[in-house]
Amino acid sequence: MSAENTINSKKIIVNDLEHLCKLFIMPNSMDKFVEFGRELLKLIRSFFQEKGGIHSAISVHELAELFSDSHIPEDPTFLKNVLFEIKEKLVAHSVKVGNPYYIGHMTSAIPYFMILLEMIIATLNQNQVKIESAKASTFLEREFVVWMHRLVYRESDNYYKENLLDREIAVGIVTSDGTLANLTALLVARNKLFKPQGNFKGIRKSGLFEAYKHYNTAKTVIIVGERGHYSIDKAARIFGIGEDNVIKIPVDDEDRMNVNLLEDKLNEIKEYNEKNETKIRILAVAAIAGNTETGNIDPIEKIAELTLKHKIYLHVDAAWGGSLLLCDDYRNMYAGIDKADSVSIDAHKLMYSPVSVAVCVFKNKNDLENLKHFSNYIIRPDSIDLGRFTIEGSRPFSCLKPWATLKIIGKKGFKLLFKHSFFLTKELTRIIDEHPNFERTNSPELFITNYRFVPKIVREKLYKLKHENSEKNILEFQKINDLLNELNIELHKELREEDNSFVSRTSLNCHSCYNLNTVILRAVTINPLTTKEILAEIVEQQNRLGMSIFISFFSEKLT
Amino acid sequence: MSAENTINSKKIIVNDLEHLCKLFIMPNSMDKFVEFGRELLKLIRSFFQEKGGIHSAISVHELAELFSDSHIPEDPTFLKNVLFEIKEKLVAHSVKVGNPYYIGHMTSAIPYFMILLEMIIATLNQNQVKIESAKASTFLEREFVVWMHRLVYRESDNYYKENLLDREIAVGIVTSDGTLANLTALLVARNKLFKPQGNFKGIRKSGLFEAYKHYNTAKTVIIVGERGHYSIDKAARIFGIGEDNVIKIPVDDEDRMNVNLLEDKLNEIKEYNEKNETKIRILAVAAIAGNTETGNIDPIEKIAELTLKHKIYLHVDAAWGGSLLLCDDYRNMYAGIDKADSVSIDAHKLMYSPVSVAVCVFKNKNDLENLKHFSNYIIRPDSIDLGRFTIEGSRPFSCLKPWATLKIIGKKGFKLLFKHSFFLTKELTRIIDEHPNFERTNSPELFITNYRFVPKIVREKLYKLKHENSEKNILEFQKINDLLNELNIELHKELREEDNSFVSRTSLNCHSCYNLNTVILRAVTINPLTTKEILAEIVEQQNRLGMSIFISFFSEKLT
Repeated sequence: MSAENTINSKKIIVNDLEHLCKLFIMPNSMDKFVEFGRELLKLIRSFFQEKGGIHSAISVHELAELFSDSHIPEDPTFLKNVLFEIKEKLVAHSVKVGNPYYIGHMTSAIPYFMILLEMIIATLNQNQVKIESAKASTFLEREFVVWMHRLVYRESDNYYKENLLDREIAVGIVTSDGTLANLTALLVARNKLFKPQGNFKGIRKSGLFEAYKHYNTAKTVIIVGERGHYSIDKAARIFGIGEDNVIKIPVDDEDRMNVNLLEDKLNEIKEYNEKNETKIRILAVAAIAGNTETGNIDPIEKIAELTLKHKIYLHVDAAWGGSLLLCDDYRNMYAGIDKADSVSIDAHKLMYSPVSVAVCVFKNKNDLENLKHFSNYIIRPDSIDLGRFTIEGSRPFSCLKPWATLKIIGKKGFKLLFKHSFFLTKELTRIIDEHPNFERTNSPELFITNYRFVPKIVREKLYKLKHENSEKNILEFQKINDLLNELNIELHKELREEDNSFVSRTSLNCHSCYNLNTVILRAVTINPLTTKEILAEIVEQQNRLGMSIFISFFSEKLT
Repeated sequence: MSAENTINSKKIIVNDLEHLCKLFIMPNSMDKFVEFGRELLKLIRSFFQEKGGIHSAISVHELAELFSDSHIPEDPTFLKNVLFEIKEKLVAHSVKVGNPYYIGHMTSAIPYFMILLEMIIATLNQNQVKIESAKASTFLEREFVVWMHRLVYRESDNYYKENLLDREIAVGIVTSDGTLANLTALLVARNKLFKPQGNFKGIRKSGLFEAYKHYNTAKTVIIVGERGHYSIDKAARIFGIGEDNVIKIPVDDEDRMNVNLLEDKLNEIKEYNEKNETKIRILAVAAIAGNTETGNIDPIEKIAELTLKHKIYLHVDAAWGGSLLLCDDYRNMYAGIDKADSVSIDAHKLMYSPVSVAVCVFKNKNDLENLKHFSNYIIRPDSIDLGRFTIEGSRPFSCLKPWATLKIIGKKGFKLLFKHSFFLTKELTRIIDEHPNFERTNSPELFITNYRFVPKIVREKLYKLKHENSEKNILEFQKINDLLNELNIELHKELREEDNSFVSRTSLNCHSCYNLNTVILRAVTINPLTTKEILAEIVEQQNRLGMSIFISFFSEKLT
């Protein structure tokens, strides 16, 4: 049966309510459901067994054509036909993010039980906004949040016992993703900074303009490392702070926020404030652990020393790396994280949940009071409703996924998973470093390796230019660098054409390249199904394609 | 096997990576997956077949105890044991929101195929933020957004064809819920209001304080009806506008924004601005269609006339009612909606998707440019990445659910569903109106009925007091009203005790009660499985409990 036939077979199948009701969950007619469920399990099984490209060969234009019917269907269609359409048009052209050769983004294979958990979540259809539509799930979420809080802050059993039972207290919240987790943390910081005082009713009631006037504020800044996540800029734009007031502290040679420069900046602001009537307010310092471009972790301990000294709110965006706290072995990488006022962690990254679910936890158990709000028909002040503290309104019961995962895999299981990811990262580093035609551009820490294709002959030339450092040489270096950027963009395109492996591409100002804007390949090695042999294969493929492009188009220009 | 046994049976089951990898999706070992899937289908089936209370009898305190382990599990647990724990601790104590006797919130039964769609979504695990992790799903989302746009704005086929194929254009976005959809719309409005001009780089770059100074602004207001959704206040707080600057226009006798008062307010602001150097800026008027407390729809056509005249951004929050546009028969209820600058619609309400997925569409196809942002490693400027326009970062492929639903049910099927909901609402109105012991307090429009228990004898007394309107009588009325509030709160509590039906409870300033704060019962009748017989049963139960409470505790005070 072709997709066309399926579509043509549309006919009026629902002409009375009784028939339609059968589509809804009814206690006495579940056979159809079980039947379809079984068929779908088979479909899913075959999806994973299928060989072939990661992205499907279809062009963006063809794909746009496939989904270019601007009319909402008038007539109903048989479920099996729609499932067939989904299989042909969607599943066939989806990105196989779970493929062990897909090492380009922070998405990996997920455990198959996630599919079972999603079935449960949909079946229950709880809305976490209020207890009247989320009874047990409200408490499960509170338990999960406490787990995440303990992961970071390691308070006593008593502390957690009290807070779990006290409906007034929320030590954190679950959000739909890391961006919203970061927004929540920084919103708390903003509202604390411009809290009610005297006649001033606080920024929440009176707004930012009045807040600045009351607090003699010229501007408010958020300080973040150069490799901080773009959601920090988003927060500045949304909150009325202004993107230009996000101060980006340059990173050191290992892509971590340069603490000396942070200290200089804080002193500079302090001096300014001592001299001026209207002040520069610091909303927060946002450290990242680890950053999404190179995977490196800002030096939290040293940053926390400074923020404590200067009495500044410290947020740690650990959306990417926070899950590693599950293993005590890696805790030293995050030294000082328990001094942060808030920490956000994504469960859909290293907790291997499906996209998307995140959490933000707060050191001070009263901090979320700065977001509290009510509504009459839901979220009553005396309730235990989780919706009191969230930016979102209606919210799915996503936390079941990481909660169950932590039970099923346990801390011990996660240790094995992370160990494997460290192993893969080390292996990829070794392969790149030993290969004559590649250059590594970062110091991999949390499973991200940055590198680029540079044929041996060109590498030698670059080395020489750098060695004999002169102004003329820098210009020559820059010229070659630009060509290498073109070459690597072309290489990435051809990789996408072959489509049996995937790394992502980004551009960064690289320390090893005079801080020039450099196009790099970015590999994220977190899939438990990826092996060192696969990594070697991927690099070899890149070398083959790279050499062929180099010989055809760049060898004259580059040698 | 008890839950306790399950927990005790924990043991080290994962001690090597190979074993652990089996939990991840592997092409060659799917038998376990299919086996568990089948078991789960049976579990889900029995969940729906189970009789018993809506909320489970467990107390909040007992529930808190059930989820009071603050320690993340060290050891792994067998999947089947965790599924058993979920069944015993979670499923058993979840709210049966799909039960036809649950008519308290905007959550209904969902079609069983939603569970199948969730399985597909989890299997594909696409991240909608960027095309590199969401190939076909990016285009499916674009098609769905265009459907929603057409629903509201009914542009030509050509218009949609061009926009579907032009990657630069997004006529709307999918968000995780209606709150984020409203936030997105109002953020666009704010950024347009304070756009770059001359030396001023715009509010996004320079922030709200500079924006106010550049645009000579004293304050910015958002205007909304008294029954507007609390997410509008949220927006004002988050964006730095300030909650006190949300102007609430009183509603008329039918709970719709009073347009005359809106006009007065707009003229008042206009006059103020003509007289003053620093101005009051109107960010937007936010109409609601319909409101979540009484279900009534603001008079959009008349509001649009005013916003067009005064050149003000008009947003329509149609999170609740927007789906009714699927039937041309009901379009006149929304007359003027195509004049709105933006409209938000929840799919997890009247499109019967699981919690949660919403959409916001924009009249002006360039409006979302006011939110556009980029990032190096994802969301490149030249990309088709949906993440360019969203407040959220990582975003699940939730739109598959309403997209497939519209295919499976079709506009014709939705017409039947809505017709049934109208029928139920009319029936409930009739039952309440014919009953001597109940008083209806709203004019139901979109499936929400507000009423309260008032024994006949008290009703007669109230009627008399109102008829002989005098100051003394108003005081007496107020006294009785307070007692009725207590009585209805008690009634609601006892309903929760019996727990075989559910309506929600709210308090509103009711027109029929001298605008006094009045506790009311709130029924939302949208479940296709609810019948008029069920409604009669529910009201009879309420009457029985109400009379018993009245006789025991209130008869002396109230007669």
